[in-house]
Amino acid sequence: MTELIETKLSSEIIFQGRFLDVRRDVVELPNGKTTTREWINHPGAVVILPILPDGLIGLIRQYRYAAQGEFIELPAGKLDSGEKPLACAARELKEEIGYKAGKLTFLAQIHPAIGFANEVMSVYLAENLEKTDCNPDADEFLELLPTPLEDAVTMVWNGKITDVKTIIGVLWLNRLCQQHRQ
Amino acid sequence: MTELIETKLSSEIIFQGRFLDVRRDVVELPNGKTTTREWINHPGAVVILPILPDGLIGLIRQYRYAAQGEFIELPAGKLDSGEKPLACAARELKEEIGYKAGKLTFLAQIHPAIGFANEVMSVYLAENLEKTDCNPDADEFLELLPTPLEDAVTMVWNGKITDVKTIIGVLWLNRLCQQHRQ
Repeated sequence: MTELIETKLSSEIIFQGRFLDVRRDVVELPNGKTTTREWINHPGAVVILPILPDGLIGLIRQYRYAAQGEFIELPAGKLDSGEKPLACAARELKEEIGYKAGKLTFLAQIHPAIGFANEVMSVYLAENLEKTDCNPDADEFLELLPTPLEDAVTMVWNGKITDVKTIIGVLWLNRLCQQHRQ
Repeated sequence: MTELIETKLSSEIIFQGRFLDVRRDVVELPNGKTTTREWINHPGAVVILPILPDGLIGLIRQYRYAAQGEFIELPAGKLDSGEKPLACAARELKEEIGYKAGKLTFLAQIHPAIGFANEVMSVYLAENLEKTDCNPDADEFLELLPTPLEDAVTMVWNGKITDVKTIIGVLWLNRLCQQHRQ
């Protein structure tokens, strides 16, 4: 196999934002030459597949300012400093849709933006849910959309769901259910 | 339905990088309060599902500096200034793996990072491929990995493929093939 690794020679933070920062590193390429790489340092995130007490999936509808539109998504959120993904999944489930999960199962790790960010997203299945209060962030507005799995799958294939973490979560759950039925 | 839109009150570029910039906008929330949103302005990108002349999928192996590792991916790339996605798909297919497509079919638009970026990625199926020369960017190193579709699907479910655009592309192609067989 060809050697493809790029080795860091130096690194500087060229922009420090509220939750992410931009780094510019000088790196040595596989051919011995050097180049610069600009990249976003991201804290990591979780995405949650909540199976509501009635068996529907707890999708949400949320306005996303960066992408300038409303999206149908699975609940998700960034890790707080030092927070483990499992704890983050439990916290976001409560904050965003007001449920406590009796069982949280890790399904997968995915990389949303490897071209320019180090974000890793852990996907959890949330079962045995119990209603509790919900406390979204002060600047977070969303609406719960309980949805049958087959409708969610249809929304993936007809382009109504375009958010990558939600597409992958829905298709993952669909596969789990297909395996369960076999 | 609850009104969720956030309205821009002002916007400034707070960091200008080589291919992306960071904006900080003051926005009005649905409850009338204001907050700031930091977001990445991204030119957009394409991802290509190349069906090689022998029927295998043209996956690639590439080191991704931001994510600090090697990834198995579909060919992809950012739009040049003013470039249309279809033209970008043809260009990246040639640059990255050295093929010209007799037929490029749009399959889907996906949003990789709606939490912090406006990136939209267009997914194309590339068929009737003809070998040509390839000319990767000077700082781009990759290896072609021709792969049977069923192996690619297995690599999605066993966690060997974690890149979101590649997961979605492979599962999309798998569905097309299942429909074709029916």
